[in-house]
Amino acid sequence: MTNFTKANNVQIAYIGGGSKGWAWGLMSDLAQDREISGTVRLYDINSESAKQNELIGNRLKEREDVIAKWDYKAVDTLSEALDGADFVIISILPGTFDQMDSDVHFPEKYGIYQSVGDTVGPGGMVRAFRTIPLFVEMAEAIKTYSPNAWVINYTNPMSLCTRTLYKVFPEIKAIGCCHEVFGTQKILAAMVEELLGVQNVKRQEIDVNVLGINHFTWIDRASYKGVDLLPLYQEFVEKYHETGFEGSEEGHWMNDHFSSAERVKFDLYKKFGLIAAAGDRHLAEFMPLNWYLANPDRVHSWKFGLTPVAWRKENAKKLVEKSKRLVSGEEQFEINPTGEEGVEMIKALIGLKTFISNVNLPNQGQMSGVPNDVIVETNAVFSHNGVQPIVSGELPPEVNKMVAAHIFTQETTLEAALEKNKEKAFRAFSQDMLVQSLNQEQAKQLFDQMLINTKDYLPGWDL
Amino acid sequence: MTNFTKANNVQIAYIGGGSKGWAWGLMSDLAQDREISGTVRLYDINSESAKQNELIGNRLKEREDVIAKWDYKAVDTLSEALDGADFVIISILPGTFDQMDSDVHFPEKYGIYQSVGDTVGPGGMVRAFRTIPLFVEMAEAIKTYSPNAWVINYTNPMSLCTRTLYKVFPEIKAIGCCHEVFGTQKILAAMVEELLGVQNVKRQEIDVNVLGINHFTWIDRASYKGVDLLPLYQEFVEKYHETGFEGSEEGHWMNDHFSSAERVKFDLYKKFGLIAAAGDRHLAEFMPLNWYLANPDRVHSWKFGLTPVAWRKENAKKLVEKSKRLVSGEEQFEINPTGEEGVEMIKALIGLKTFISNVNLPNQGQMSGVPNDVIVETNAVFSHNGVQPIVSGELPPEVNKMVAAHIFTQETTLEAALEKNKEKAFRAFSQDMLVQSLNQEQAKQLFDQMLINTKDYLPGWDL
Amino acid sequence: MTNFTKANNVQIAYIGGGSKGWAWGLMSDLAQDREISGTVRLYDINSESAKQNELIGNRLKEREDVIAKWDYKAVDTLSEALDGADFVIISILPGTFDQMDSDVHFPEKYGIYQSVGDTVGPGGMVRAFRTIPLFVEMAEAIKTYSPNAWVINYTNPMSLCTRTLYKVFPEIKAIGCCHEVFGTQKILAAMVEELLGVQNVKRQEIDVNVLGINHFTWIDRASYKGVDLLPLYQEFVEKYHETGFEGSEEGHWMNDHFSSAERVKFDLYKKFGLIAAAGDRHLAEFMPLNWYLANPDRVHSWKFGLTPVAWRKENAKKLVEKSKRLVSGEEQFEINPTGEEGVEMIKALIGLKTFISNVNLPNQGQMSGVPNDVIVETNAVFSHNGVQPIVSGELPPEVNKMVAAHIFTQETTLEAALEKNKEKAFRAFSQDMLVQSLNQEQAKQLFDQMLINTKDYLPGWDL
Amino acid sequence: MTNFTKANNVQIAYIGGGSKGWAWGLMSDLAQDREISGTVRLYDINSESAKQNELIGNRLKEREDVIAKWDYKAVDTLSEALDGADFVIISILPGTFDQMDSDVHFPEKYGIYQSVGDTVGPGGMVRAFRTIPLFVEMAEAIKTYSPNAWVINYTNPMSLCTRTLYKVFPEIKAIGCCHEVFGTQKILAAMVEELLGVQNVKRQEIDVNVLGINHFTWIDRASYKGVDLLPLYQEFVEKYHETGFEGSEEGHWMNDHFSSAERVKFDLYKKFGLIAAAGDRHLAEFMPLNWYLANPDRVHSWKFGLTPVAWRKENAKKLVEKSKRLVSGEEQFEINPTGEEGVEMIKALIGLKTFISNVNLPNQGQMSGVPNDVIVETNAVFSHNGVQPIVSGELPPEVNKMVAAHIFTQETTLEAALEKNKEKAFRAFSQDMLVQSLNQEQAKQLFDQMLINTKDYLPGWDL
Repeated sequence: MTNFTKANNVQIAYIGGGSKGWAWGLMSDLAQDREISGTVRLYDINSESAKQNELIGNRLKEREDVIAKWDYKAVDTLSEALDGADFVIISILPGTFDQMDSDVHFPEKYGIYQSVGDTVGPGGMVRAFRTIPLFVEMAEAIKTYSPNAWVINYTNPMSLCTRTLYKVFPEIKAIGCCHEVFGTQKILAAMVEELLGVQNVKRQEIDVNVLGINHFTWIDRASYKGVDLLPLYQEFVEKYHETGFEGSEEGHWMNDHFSSAERVKFDLYKKFGLIAAAGDRHLAEFMPLNWYLANPDRVHSWKFGLTPVAWRKENAKKLVEKSKRLVSGEEQFEINPTGEEGVEMIKALIGLKTFISNVNLPNQGQMSGVPNDVIVETNAVFSHNGVQPIVSGELPPEVNKMVAAHIFTQETTLEAALEKNKEKAFRAFSQDMLVQSLNQEQAKQLFDQMLINTKDYLPGWDL
Repeated sequence: MTNFTKANNVQIAYIGGGSKGWAWGLMSDLAQDREISGTVRLYDINSESAKQNELIGNRLKEREDVIAKWDYKAVDTLSEALDGADFVIISILPGTFDQMDSDVHFPEKYGIYQSVGDTVGPGGMVRAFRTIPLFVEMAEAIKTYSPNAWVINYTNPMSLCTRTLYKVFPEIKAIGCCHEVFGTQKILAAMVEELLGVQNVKRQEIDVNVLGINHFTWIDRASYKGVDLLPLYQEFVEKYHETGFEGSEEGHWMNDHFSSAERVKFDLYKKFGLIAAAGDRHLAEFMPLNWYLANPDRVHSWKFGLTPVAWRKENAKKLVEKSKRLVSGEEQFEINPTGEEGVEMIKALIGLKTFISNVNLPNQGQMSGVPNDVIVETNAVFSHNGVQPIVSGELPPEVNKMVAAHIFTQETTLEAALEKNKEKAFRAFSQDMLVQSLNQEQAKQLFDQMLINTKDYLPGWDL
Repeated sequence: MTNFTKANNVQIAYIGGGSKGWAWGLMSDLAQDREISGTVRLYDINSESAKQNELIGNRLKEREDVIAKWDYKAVDTLSEALDGADFVIISILPGTFDQMDSDVHFPEKYGIYQSVGDTVGPGGMVRAFRTIPLFVEMAEAIKTYSPNAWVINYTNPMSLCTRTLYKVFPEIKAIGCCHEVFGTQKILAAMVEELLGVQNVKRQEIDVNVLGINHFTWIDRASYKGVDLLPLYQEFVEKYHETGFEGSEEGHWMNDHFSSAERVKFDLYKKFGLIAAAGDRHLAEFMPLNWYLANPDRVHSWKFGLTPVAWRKENAKKLVEKSKRLVSGEEQFEINPTGEEGVEMIKALIGLKTFISNVNLPNQGQMSGVPNDVIVETNAVFSHNGVQPIVSGELPPEVNKMVAAHIFTQETTLEAALEKNKEKAFRAFSQDMLVQSLNQEQAKQLFDQMLINTKDYLPGWDL
Repeated sequence: MTNFTKANNVQIAYIGGGSKGWAWGLMSDLAQDREISGTVRLYDINSESAKQNELIGNRLKEREDVIAKWDYKAVDTLSEALDGADFVIISILPGTFDQMDSDVHFPEKYGIYQSVGDTVGPGGMVRAFRTIPLFVEMAEAIKTYSPNAWVINYTNPMSLCTRTLYKVFPEIKAIGCCHEVFGTQKILAAMVEELLGVQNVKRQEIDVNVLGINHFTWIDRASYKGVDLLPLYQEFVEKYHETGFEGSEEGHWMNDHFSSAERVKFDLYKKFGLIAAAGDRHLAEFMPLNWYLANPDRVHSWKFGLTPVAWRKENAKKLVEKSKRLVSGEEQFEINPTGEEGVEMIKALIGLKTFISNVNLPNQGQMSGVPNDVIVETNAVFSHNGVQPIVSGELPPEVNKMVAAHIFTQETTLEAALEKNKEKAFRAFSQDMLVQSLNQEQAKQLFDQMLINTKDYLPGWDL
């Protein structure tokens, strides 16, 4: 008799499979699962990295503490990875950290500080110009080699990467996944523990209605077992608005480039009455420069960090060393649940469970007040071969205004990247919220220089 | 510390609280629940019936096998029932069985046989004219006395009752609930057992995507633990198209006025390639007369029954006797789960769980291809103080054509009933699928006579 | 200095340029125009006919009573006709009159009488299956050879021909033009003359708001110099409902296969309160069979004619003779204004005037209550290089129901034709209003036989 | 016989009828018309002014050079003005010039210069808070006293005034009229004269497609007798971008507070590739402060004027004197065509003509990319009892972004004004494009002070 609770031959194509972050996390999550097993094909433009991950992954099969025995296989071409895949995971770095360095830090010369620089702001926009052609290529390859596969994208800028996939291949079954909302659920869980005196509240127990675009999502309804959390959050914000709140994440904002004390989030609540549902580092980049990112002191006073690309480069070097040790067996791969939901999504899509999570999808009616087809982030129901967004309502106009502004600028960005149209690219660039602090001459100079810095990744542009 | 897993003071207003069907079912379901308790206020225009149910309900508290001790209280006015209610349940009979007799059987003189006569067809339409004014009154009372209550309607015609509530009080939190899709899930569960050799498949394990209007819903995607059921259903239909299938429900269609052998459902699959998700008795009424309802022999050959109102009258008499025995204590109330989801929905809305079920709601984007605001039936997510429909796609045009036709006729029906406009009422009536078998003179005669038969319930009409 | 009031080198491609009806009409209208001149390239699968028309057309240049000297040129290929064209006129007969004979008369064996048989009904539907592939081909050729040309289609079934052009080449600038609304304006003009005692009212002076689909359009607002014509029409209908009205067109319905006494139109007003804006012969085919087309006696009593294809064949023979005479010079071409607006539209699109007329276009918001992108007929503003529909509102639900039903069936028809899918084709066929009078077995027999009769024009179908 | 080309008893209610600008203009235009006559009832909160205008207006009847003899009647109440009106004209000053002084000049303390200050910017927003309650009152009165009248609004902020009318009384037949697009047509006409060597081009001969919101409309298609004007405009912009162009209006920008040299318009074309269709003074206020309005020198270099309220006060005084002279007969009223289209619109609505012009209406599909129901400005067809917008397409995303941002902020403004909600009012205020140049503390100070300055006109607010 068929076993309806297991799936044994799942084929996953991992684009960016040489990754030492997301790929290792996936290995860890897959290793612990009791219900699915199969093969992960690792494709990376750095084929050496993919091969190392093949060795690292396959080593897990031998271990007793590993439940699921997955095969890992480095492949040389995109088509080899995709052909016959049930799932495609995309997690790539567009360009190198050198380009990212320009994205994030070059605008500092013009007084624009960016805490992440991969979504909006001058950095996010130039990253988009670089990334969209790569996603055009992937969409075409998926259309040819694995048109029925489910595609899970983790690459930023999330909205534009996912939008590109659908633009090129409208029948694609692609979703964009991001953990930023989880972080906000964790803060709310910590709040429930503190204010209601409950213990061990899990983020999954915090029900939220999610609305917006990636890294700029909002929660207009939240509850914990029937308790409405909006009034509680009001109280929480009053308490921690000034000092910040450190309880929900491991790192302290002063020591950890990825942490914050949630002051931006609290301030946005005071301004708009809704819960902004992403990390402060992301949120700040969507707002006027003079609100949070005017200068490093201002950033410091809002208690969040500017993540330097130098740190990323340094960290990458450490990971290369670690990879070597893992390959050689000098160090053992540590299996830890990541908290990501990729594996759960795969299981739901196979039909092993039904679950609800937030996800980036073309708007088909789940979010009112913004156009159809643009990528929005709301909750969706994952089930056998289906991801169906939940009708999530409309943001109040003062918040919708900000979300829509970024959406329209992303639409211009997309058009510019597809047409390799420098003039249109500048129209998008100059309308970015952070860039609008500059006068037009400065904006043009910054734009021209940033494009030159990334020109190796802009084939076909007239630079 | 607060107990987050129980709710102890739930206030339910039951409109039609003298009912001996749905009300007793609710008593049974409430009695067995471990998480909620409170008060049910019973309002009925037959106040004697409500009082009897008060006695019957309160008796349960004394019994050892009853888990939840609910208070039942008959009230004399709608406002008393509604004031302070958390939930309002509406389950009424518009008019009496005499009017229903005319609805169902009078058209037989013109060759129109109706298996139920409460949704569409000449009977459903005249019932709507009678019912809509009652729902106008209820919507106004809810707006005044319990604007924040959740309203659960079970009354037919479902779509038009729910539509009326929203038309009169757009901010109402009302849902229309119906178990017909459950029946189809049961057939699919029986099919899975038979064709896949699995045992004890529960209907809840059959995942379906639901699209359409009440009693005329369609399933375009169905799975059981990851197995796509559409190809299986094709096989099932081939096997049972001629003979019919008896396995999923208790009664045999020849002995049970509510059963069928699913031949209509199978035939619709052969015609349209989708699973029609309601009982055959309902489905047949949405199609051209000559397909299934041309005459009793045709009905017999399709193996479903015409439910006679005489039987309903007879049955009602038996229930009156039974009610007396329950009140006197001569007979003990039998506690049996009904399989309905009302109590589960209440618990979800309180915040004790999250669950997904099909429900009737104004279209806000969950169903493409039909107008906004009309009542459609799709799946929705029930959670704390929220019912959010799931974006469910669009029916193929040949099916959407039929659904849309009934929707537009319902819109005309609604306008006619609100305006008490006899001319417009006839426009709706003459466009009904069953009525269209008549020529215009016959249709007019039938219409005039049926309105006269129900004229006591059409105050303000110029008849 | 540039002359801004003339255009001297207009290039028109005429597909179906061997036509002896529309083509001669165009010659006549072009000959009389003072503002434009140029070349008409005549393409026809019957190249002999095209060559005759070349000779006939060019002869006009020599005449003194001809104002504009147009060049006519028969071409051998579609690409030759299209390359460099400013305007493309499409007016073809899909198949021959033998196929049309089957379309119109074969269903009579099953009791289905059709007055035209080229739009809906079994005949219209089979004609659509035959025509859509031809329009696929034309759309592809236009995309290749004259993507910027304005395309004016006169071929029926109008909605589906135009829909096909946009489906294949979404950027096409195509409109569907039909004179049926003009006929209704003429009736209203005659009414104004009769009831208001005004003389010489021109149809262009009758302002109307038009809503619907081709041959099934409705007028919900009409006026003559500020006088609301709806109340007047009510009076007019009362007067002529029984006897019919003969005044607006030349022919008497009993002698002229294309005339009627407007009784269907008046009856629809009594039923729905709006002015149906097409000829009775077309309108009747959109309604249930038993209303107007049940049998020839019924048709006769409604005072309109069934246009026999035998007549068309006979007439075609006469035109062939006439064509020979025109070519030989035995007979002189008669120049008469047709009353069509094609030349006026061309002038407006060139920029010589702005004017408003009804036209078939994809729904982009001009008509509420039906889906976007399907072809609807409303008024539009014609100006330099633009045809912009006017926001025209929504039909009342009882009328919209009928319009939407035909739209959805057309969508199924389109899908079936594009996919060459016989099963889907039957779904469309069996849902046609006239076909629904048959039981399913009869419908299937009729369908199968009609497809066989036209099979030479259904390449790629599995018949 | 009825005269279908004249209307003799037209009833016009003029709200703000004491006006010395628009009211005198209307008198002038009415006096010259050959087709309509009737009564104008003048209502003004300054009843003395209304009475003066009554005298001035009635005097015209005696003059020989006046064609149409209109009666003017000052009335004491809104209801008297509205009761029985066919047309309602609204042209009021909300508050006094003292409040306007604060609107326009107070923000200068914070470095925000406004050229007009009545639409957006801090001034426009505060003016909206003051004006919306007045329009709520008018909408309710119109609903009661003249629900079938056509309402023509000239008051700013145009979009919000018109939106308020529809929000309160959705069935109202209201339009918002503005002459700014005419000004742009005049520039294009001057351009055609200059570049094409044509003489006496009328603005009405310039066909344009209009898209956007009042004072921030855009032209994406323009032609003169078939000549596409976009390429010509490109040439024109190149020629005059630096120097500015003075030819189209009477006043020179340096001497005339209402004139400009179109440099802002030309700059916007260079930036966005579309023709911005309003005066530079208006356009500048919709853009970031540092583009055009950073300081008076910047304004001067862009060659447009800041219209000082002191000038308006001074001018008002002169008009009071002039009014006295007109009343006394010391001065004769000068009849001059205004170039406004109000009288033409009235004639079209009566049914005397059909014409096309730009107008502000709720979005019902005429403009894609922005929500339904908000007020947009596009072309519309005016005919007997109907104003139907023309489907006008969608702005490119980079322009739509700016338009949508202002729309959403207006929606917040509306909600705030209706709720008298100061917190929400600040959310709107702080999102204004000009205000966003301030930091949040400054913005709050400015807001608080401006509300205080206008507090006499904010009854019910918690200030």
